Amino acid sequence: MKLYSYFRSSAAYRVRIALNLKGLPYEYAPVHLLRDGGEQLKPEYRRVNPEGVVPTLVDDAQQPIQQSLAIIEYLDETHPEPPLLPGTAIDRAHVRSIALQIACEIHPLDNLRVLRYLKHTLRVDDAAKDAWYRHWIESGFATLDARLADDPRTGTLCFGDTPTLADLCIVPQVFNAHRFSIDMTRYPTLQRIYEHAVQIDAFARAAPGAQPDAE
Amino acid sequence: MKLYSYFRSSAAYRVRIALNLKGLPYEYAPVHLLRDGGEQLKPEYRRVNPEGVVPTLVDDAQQPIQQSLAIIEYLDETHPEPPLLPGTAIDRAHVRSIALQIACEIHPLDNLRVLRYLKHTLRVDDAAKDAWYRHWIESGFATLDARLADDPRTGTLCFGDTPTLADLCIVPQVFNAHRFSIDMTRYPTLQRIYEHAVQIDAFARAAPGAQPDAE
Repeated sequence: MKLYSYFRSSAAYRVRIALNLKGLPYEYAPVHLLRDGGEQLKPEYRRVNPEGVVPTLVDDAQQPIQQSLAIIEYLDETHPEPPLLPGTAIDRAHVRSIALQIACEIHPLDNLRVLRYLKHTLRVDDAAKDAWYRHWIESGFATLDARLADDPRTGTLCFGDTPTLADLCIVPQVFNAHRFSIDMTRYPTLQRIYEHAVQIDAFARAAPGAQPDAE
Repeated sequence: MKLYSYFRSSAAYRVRIALNLKGLPYEYAPVHLLRDGGEQLKPEYRRVNPEGVVPTLVDDAQQPIQQSLAIIEYLDETHPEPPLLPGTAIDRAHVRSIALQIACEIHPLDNLRVLRYLKHTLRVDDAAKDAWYRHWIESGFATLDARLADDPRTGTLCFGDTPTLADLCIVPQVFNAHRFSIDMTRYPTLQRIYEHAVQIDAFARAAPGAQPDAE
């Protein structure tokens, strides 16, 4: 398998954790999002990912798959051990809804192309752009932290003590929050889950700083 | 089952289609997103949906489920007929990636709370706010339409001729595009799929104008 990735992309980070947890070796194909106007927008890359975003997974049958959560569900279906979703439908819905809260409500607003639109089209200054970035993380984390703190299913990780799709989304998002110096003492459950997860080898090896294209 | 919904919410619209396709009767609980500062932000609603967004599905065991795609996967697992995902892992990944392209790359940017932030915090004028709204639909539709036009799996609907999760996401997003007078002749495959889908009874009954809280 081959993963088109950028070390700092949180969507790619999610998939790297999944591949590591499943014990699947893969070729790392770096796509530099900032260099030369963005390698993700070049025609060569658009052939595997028409949207021009990372990640893309190309499976052993040479089929490209786009969108991190679709890739992770695919890996979980084709390589079921260890499972990344719980055993019952209602628990799977719980885990997926946490993952989607990050993937649909927080992460899309802080994407590179959105920040670029704010800066270049709306002429928003750097302070307002940073405030935007923090706003979506902070408002999302506030409800997510309360929800996890209240749920009896929460353990050392999001769902008990075994990594699930939810942890794969939380860890990269908390990593970004740290990069932007967001005060994580306000989100103690998320911070605690993050600290526990990054000790796990599969998460540690997926971290941005551990990638071949890290700067 | 009970669905907390707002007639114009495209995420709720997706779930309404799924419930109709599965032939599942449900109680419709309207949550008015604009009235009285937003009913979705009131403490009563936050008990079933801490994020304060629609939809929420409360299943027959009184368990609330948040996030439209998690709800639809749950319905598909607990009521498998007719299936909303194809029979093979690679085709499921294809359908999920189309759904996620809309749910993660287009829809979040045009959400009510985002448009409010643009207006009230960034003081963006109405023309620039409308341009923002169109930009994310148009840039997303351009790549999505090309992708669907090129894929041999595309039929009268996104994946052959049977409704899948992808159609459940495309129809509400095209509906919004029409509302904002986006020129759909530039996205002929999406428009063709939309026109075909809205003839199907389960889609027609889920349309915003057919809901009890329609204005």
